[in-house]
Amino acid sequence: MGIDPGLTRCGLGVVEGQVGRPLRLVDVNVLRTSADRPVAERLVTIEKGIDAWLDEFAPDAVAVERVFARSDSSTIMGTAQASGIAMVAAARRGIPLALHTPSEVKAAVSGSGRAAKAQVGAMVARILRLEAAPKPADAADALALAITHIWRGGAQSRLEAAVAQHERRIAAAGGAR
Amino acid sequence: MGIDPGLTRCGLGVVEGQVGRPLRLVDVNVLRTSADRPVAERLVTIEKGIDAWLDEFAPDAVAVERVFARSDSSTIMGTAQASGIAMVAAARRGIPLALHTPSEVKAAVSGSGRAAKAQVGAMVARILRLEAAPKPADAADALALAITHIWRGGAQSRLEAAVAQHERRIAAAGGAR
Repeated sequence: MGIDPGLTRCGLGVVEGQVGRPLRLVDVNVLRTSADRPVAERLVTIEKGIDAWLDEFAPDAVAVERVFARSDSSTIMGTAQASGIAMVAAARRGIPLALHTPSEVKAAVSGSGRAAKAQVGAMVARILRLEAAPKPADAADALALAITHIWRGGAQSRLEAAVAQHERRIAAAGGAR
Repeated sequence: MGIDPGLTRCGLGVVEGQVGRPLRLVDVNVLRTSADRPVAERLVTIEKGIDAWLDEFAPDAVAVERVFARSDSSTIMGTAQASGIAMVAAARRGIPLALHTPSEVKAAVSGSGRAAKAQVGAMVARILRLEAAPKPADAADALALAITHIWRGGAQSRLEAAVAQHERRIAAAGGAR
């Protein structure tokens, strides 16, 4: 499941499949919250929407877009807060979590880290054999994150799981001393 | 309860009292998470710590420091994510939530919106009749947020509650038509 975090629009996309096999679109949605509401209430709405999807689809892994500080964006704080909510929703359930940068996602689905939005949407449609690019862009981005995770994120999750297991063993050995 | 959000150190402070009466320190703590751990795990630790305090102290209101995008800070994304977690933790329980800017907090406790960190700590100690300024600064900042909320936030919360109630009435009237 891919999550493109945002306060006004938060994209959710579930893709099924594995490397080397055709991927399948399971579902896609965009959570929307009104700028007229207090930020805390909007974040709770996003949390509920994400929780509902984690319940429904029980994904093997969650991929969230990595957010960077950019002074030129007035929406970056809300995006960062929404990304924190998404990360905690997955981590709280013990679902393996990966963060992918926008460049990594663009490179994975289109071959270029500097691909345009429309190109990403077109590639998502081609990869998932859809008749048109998912709209709005947040929906396409969430699916692109899920595709990216299947194609390149699997190894990262397994590495992190192995590191975590190794650390637990060291901690257990330390406790037994 | 005041929360000074942060990924490495998150200050929590509970203050009891009302405008025009001496305020009392109930408890203060700083949640710490290691930079060696994945961000999602750190955010879950912060969420658990905040939830535990909301359970224990059942505060009448929660005041969180308002976070601004600043390009000069490498920690701003983690701070924004932690603030989102804090806001949702309060909002999920229906606890009135207020955001105060650092300048508002400084002005409330010291009389100057540009007061130094040490001055804020000294004023928090004086207001709560402590022998020394709470350490680290995150602890003092959390208490300063709680004090600020009691002194100036109460009116803001009541205003928001009134607006929300008014909107519910309009919605209910619309539904009855």
